[in-house]
Amino acid sequence: MAGNSFGQSFRITTAGESHGPGNVVIIDGVPPGIPLLEKDFLFDLSRRRPGQSKITTQRKEADTPEILSGVFEGKTTGTSLSILIRNQDQRSKDYEDIKDKYRPGHADFTFDAKYGFRDYRGGGRASARETVVRVAAGVVAKKILARAGVVVVGYVKQIGPLVATIPHPEKITLSEVESNIVRCPDVEMAPQMIALIDEVRKNVDSIGGVAEIVTKGIPAGWGEPVFDKLKADLAKGLFSLPAVMGVEYGEGFNVATLRGSENNDYFISKRGKITTQTNRHGGMLGGISSGLPLVLRCAIKPTSSLARPQPTVTRKGKKTTIQTKGRHDPCLLPRFIPMGEAMVAITLADHYLRYQSCRI
Amino acid sequence: MAGNSFGQSFRITTAGESHGPGNVVIIDGVPPGIPLLEKDFLFDLSRRRPGQSKITTQRKEADTPEILSGVFEGKTTGTSLSILIRNQDQRSKDYEDIKDKYRPGHADFTFDAKYGFRDYRGGGRASARETVVRVAAGVVAKKILARAGVVVVGYVKQIGPLVATIPHPEKITLSEVESNIVRCPDVEMAPQMIALIDEVRKNVDSIGGVAEIVTKGIPAGWGEPVFDKLKADLAKGLFSLPAVMGVEYGEGFNVATLRGSENNDYFISKRGKITTQTNRHGGMLGGISSGLPLVLRCAIKPTSSLARPQPTVTRKGKKTTIQTKGRHDPCLLPRFIPMGEAMVAITLADHYLRYQSCRI
Amino acid sequence: MAGNSFGQSFRITTAGESHGPGNVVIIDGVPPGIPLLEKDFLFDLSRRRPGQSKITTQRKEADTPEILSGVFEGKTTGTSLSILIRNQDQRSKDYEDIKDKYRPGHADFTFDAKYGFRDYRGGGRASARETVVRVAAGVVAKKILARAGVVVVGYVKQIGPLVATIPHPEKITLSEVESNIVRCPDVEMAPQMIALIDEVRKNVDSIGGVAEIVTKGIPAGWGEPVFDKLKADLAKGLFSLPAVMGVEYGEGFNVATLRGSENNDYFISKRGKITTQTNRHGGMLGGISSGLPLVLRCAIKPTSSLARPQPTVTRKGKKTTIQTKGRHDPCLLPRFIPMGEAMVAITLADHYLRYQSCRI
Amino acid sequence: MAGNSFGQSFRITTAGESHGPGNVVIIDGVPPGIPLLEKDFLFDLSRRRPGQSKITTQRKEADTPEILSGVFEGKTTGTSLSILIRNQDQRSKDYEDIKDKYRPGHADFTFDAKYGFRDYRGGGRASARETVVRVAAGVVAKKILARAGVVVVGYVKQIGPLVATIPHPEKITLSEVESNIVRCPDVEMAPQMIALIDEVRKNVDSIGGVAEIVTKGIPAGWGEPVFDKLKADLAKGLFSLPAVMGVEYGEGFNVATLRGSENNDYFISKRGKITTQTNRHGGMLGGISSGLPLVLRCAIKPTSSLARPQPTVTRKGKKTTIQTKGRHDPCLLPRFIPMGEAMVAITLADHYLRYQSCRI
Repeated sequence: MAGNSFGQSFRITTAGESHGPGNVVIIDGVPPGIPLLEKDFLFDLSRRRPGQSKITTQRKEADTPEILSGVFEGKTTGTSLSILIRNQDQRSKDYEDIKDKYRPGHADFTFDAKYGFRDYRGGGRASARETVVRVAAGVVAKKILARAGVVVVGYVKQIGPLVATIPHPEKITLSEVESNIVRCPDVEMAPQMIALIDEVRKNVDSIGGVAEIVTKGIPAGWGEPVFDKLKADLAKGLFSLPAVMGVEYGEGFNVATLRGSENNDYFISKRGKITTQTNRHGGMLGGISSGLPLVLRCAIKPTSSLARPQPTVTRKGKKTTIQTKGRHDPCLLPRFIPMGEAMVAITLADHYLRYQSCRI
Repeated sequence: MAGNSFGQSFRITTAGESHGPGNVVIIDGVPPGIPLLEKDFLFDLSRRRPGQSKITTQRKEADTPEILSGVFEGKTTGTSLSILIRNQDQRSKDYEDIKDKYRPGHADFTFDAKYGFRDYRGGGRASARETVVRVAAGVVAKKILARAGVVVVGYVKQIGPLVATIPHPEKITLSEVESNIVRCPDVEMAPQMIALIDEVRKNVDSIGGVAEIVTKGIPAGWGEPVFDKLKADLAKGLFSLPAVMGVEYGEGFNVATLRGSENNDYFISKRGKITTQTNRHGGMLGGISSGLPLVLRCAIKPTSSLARPQPTVTRKGKKTTIQTKGRHDPCLLPRFIPMGEAMVAITLADHYLRYQSCRI
Repeated sequence: MAGNSFGQSFRITTAGESHGPGNVVIIDGVPPGIPLLEKDFLFDLSRRRPGQSKITTQRKEADTPEILSGVFEGKTTGTSLSILIRNQDQRSKDYEDIKDKYRPGHADFTFDAKYGFRDYRGGGRASARETVVRVAAGVVAKKILARAGVVVVGYVKQIGPLVATIPHPEKITLSEVESNIVRCPDVEMAPQMIALIDEVRKNVDSIGGVAEIVTKGIPAGWGEPVFDKLKADLAKGLFSLPAVMGVEYGEGFNVATLRGSENNDYFISKRGKITTQTNRHGGMLGGISSGLPLVLRCAIKPTSSLARPQPTVTRKGKKTTIQTKGRHDPCLLPRFIPMGEAMVAITLADHYLRYQSCRI
Repeated sequence: MAGNSFGQSFRITTAGESHGPGNVVIIDGVPPGIPLLEKDFLFDLSRRRPGQSKITTQRKEADTPEILSGVFEGKTTGTSLSILIRNQDQRSKDYEDIKDKYRPGHADFTFDAKYGFRDYRGGGRASARETVVRVAAGVVAKKILARAGVVVVGYVKQIGPLVATIPHPEKITLSEVESNIVRCPDVEMAPQMIALIDEVRKNVDSIGGVAEIVTKGIPAGWGEPVFDKLKADLAKGLFSLPAVMGVEYGEGFNVATLRGSENNDYFISKRGKITTQTNRHGGMLGGISSGLPLVLRCAIKPTSSLARPQPTVTRKGKKTTIQTKGRHDPCLLPRFIPMGEAMVAITLADHYLRYQSCRI
């Protein structure tokens, strides 16, 4: 038990369900003196918000953050910061139909097995709704990272068979990502991805994809051997997000086919600074940042909820079908981007602060 | 700092470098009364040991474990268990040649950036040598899991372009894996893999691959929302191992190309037990075990050390070349199997014990 | 940094300041299925509340708890439980007078030294206001302990020179404690204590005391060697409360004057159960519960805030005087009882759950 | 379970029993570049060692530390440091006599209740033998603190009814403490204490006492609200030591009798620095260091083992007597001093490093 905290020096603890009063995060370890207002959360929350475009779910959530503590006169105090985001839509619905049925691909069955019952009104604690406060915490993490000149940018790399061409991941900017609703900076591929998602939606189906997240500006030296390597903590953070089925760094799974002579990045000296000629290693060596851009990818499964009848069983094991009536994302990728960025930023903010403790 | 512990209820803490006196692990949280003798470690240590076959490094290490505490009259006591494995070969060598050079693909540069110097005698703390005590801890974890009927089996899935065909991952047995030196249970593919590694070795090169690790017998309900999901903690453990560049579960990166209607596993009732018809989800839903076999894969990069000259720079940024004289694995995969199994077993033993704390 | 969490298997994380919007606690590790309603918090909150009697501060706070998550249909879900208690009285006051002065005995100076500024509107995060959510968490902990038949009862043992006579600490009941406003079950001493506090209040002064907290029903075996001994974790919890200057168990500081032959409690067999004849050890041996009542005492300093001028300095070191205008407790003891009980209950609930993880 | 680690940024994890092969500590979070040799441990180990004087146990233990990792070329590397101290005397003895009897005041019974059996050869994990590696870790902690100009000095304040007069705790030096075998810097009281312990020893009895530990040089600002206050973490560390029955800071339990107007320390400006006129608060306000010397006291119970017959029961509850044959300390205080200092130093080193993480 007790799995709702993440991080050591910068630690977030979350609570909340999809259909309860709200979601709350306590962020422990925020350095004092960082300017922070409630409006600072709105941009990333709007990127995560349902109903933001025709290719996301049409549910409406206002996502108004309230800072409950940790900020005084517009600046962080150094003590624990908490943010509450109430759920808008808790109206009583008729759940009788799905109350005893296990939705395919969801955690209904496993929560029931673990806890002896489940919150049948929705995903409960397993719902992606809980990520709303992670995105808020990510905003604080990004502000901390900004002090070190570190910037995190994520984008869609692949939707179904459509793979974006991104020759220089480290050059992609937030405005390029936000230039289209699918959040893919390959301007030729983006419209095709949007068309594909639209087609999938019309077919009452969903589709998976790959997100790529790039971090620039990390100095060499972040990450702690041997278990808290950057690659280990980042992966833990990313896999803690719903629907993530794979994580890879640099060349990733492609290394299986490479020879050492092809895969090694050679050290060079460039403007008086030691770096590597290429970045197949993805910005970490021995799990410690190398000073090169950190490049990773996450595989995201297609949304499990479908507005078509799917076979399943009841709690008692009786055969039945289930058809989700709610409005769901035909593709999770566009809304995953801010969530993935948040977890990367939270992990890196933690390691930035942890790194300080060997400076005495 | 302080990144050398892993786990909550079953927690391992390790210390040791490649060329120091030895490696030690303290295992905290071992339940009392489990039979344990020093000879119990020998099998898995021999699977990890260098020099075990013609396709691994020819270095010789005896790897004799000494139980320092936590066992009394052949049984675990419930208090902290510690195991010491001394390094055999600490003979003074001439490191002058590589002392100031950064080995490509290694953590020499990042350790130097982090700590202000590095142990130039070898990988130091970044060496895969440190995994020797993880494998020992894995033996204890496997014994704990055995009490719950849980078995972890890993094997080689891919070497370079050669991909094994494993129609039923959950049926693979340890003896099938150990039937050949590459640890691939596909009897037709194994000889080809061995031949490929042999060829690569003769070319003074190395090659990557993919390991698949399967766990059978986990009941539904292990794993803690939202950050300590099984998939999150397993990934942290696996990525904390050297050379791991990717981790995926079930369909893994393949989900990017699937539609929801193709990817969802439907719940069925089988002999009075609820399960799913297929296991594309890899044994976890919402990060909690579903009762189906847990299936994961790790991408392992080709060995960075090559016995051929590679370009690099010195600490001062001067161009030079480096040629590793030591004997190195042409392919890490056969020796990775026990390491990967160990981290999976350690993670699952932790979650098995954590699971107990909601049973009151 | 990151010091706002307490516990391992049952872990509370808190946030909030005296003059911010409110205080919040996230409780992680609550077992599922425990009945819990918002009204369950009211009794202990009322015991902690200012203005409850003539010998406490006359401030009024409503302390209405809102369960934000972790409860569904009146029962805990097993996922993280969060409780929000808003601050009533945040009205803008004129703090100009004390803004730059350090209040004697308070954390104004140390917070300023640590964070570079302080919340001058009150104690901020150092205010006893933050304990309101600890008391709420204590209610949940007491419910968990009730499942094991464990009951925590605290009472006032000493006010100034007045020491209560409690021949059988383990027999004191909550109703005896609540029978008078000073929460002292010695019916002869209680009126004298009340009179003393009243006299102190009239003299614009404050007075210290000692609280005794007794826990009955703990089976032998709770507590984890060697650092997480019960006595260690209880002391950490109690000293984390404001104003606690000493903690002792059983004979406590009196052991300094005892000989081993006087202090040892001899084991006996009583109705088929092994126990000790006496309980000078206070219910723990080797930091593990012995099955006897756990008896501890906390020394509480006199309230630092006084409504009389006290000498101090400004931030710039200029001599001045400060006179607290707020209404303050002339003695902290009556309101400390529920706080101390809460921390004991929280610590023991954690160890109850931790204890489960060696039962496999 | 899993209670064998202490600290966050500077974290020690220990293992070992009184009669096993040895004791080991892994210290995680040691900053790089600190000079450290095995001989650096010898002084404090000799202060803890049995047989050091006529008023301690006459057992002989060599306590030779071996650094297993974390030091390279005489300096710490920044990676996990481990130290092994083998037990000298593991010779097979005839334990048949005490095997099934519970020693009064010891953890035999509670370990049996917890784990289902106990290491009957001695205290096992509950023995004070395990503190040998804590003292070693304390040496490393003291070296880290020295970088911040922080010095920890402990001494005996009271033995039985004999109380030392120490007008200026912050002026006591290590050499004053070490000037006599009872480690009491009051040169008039020391001989009386020694005589008392000698008399107690001749009476085949033991006696308790109080240790005072003073830390000088801590800047204002160490300690983390609200649970990881310095006073909370120090108390946890100190109570985790065997035989500690009470801990108090500054005025300690005496605050019960004081009025606020007597107890408050007034802020003054002294040579341009803000401090307090008096130090009744013991160096911490709100659990954060105030810049004044940190002053604390521990109550230590009389040794439980007595070389005289004491009544007890067997595992089956049968009445019997037990007489400890081993050589035991008639008074634990002289040997407690280095243990107490070590835990204070370890706690403060942790908070020193944690403090760094808010400096960005």
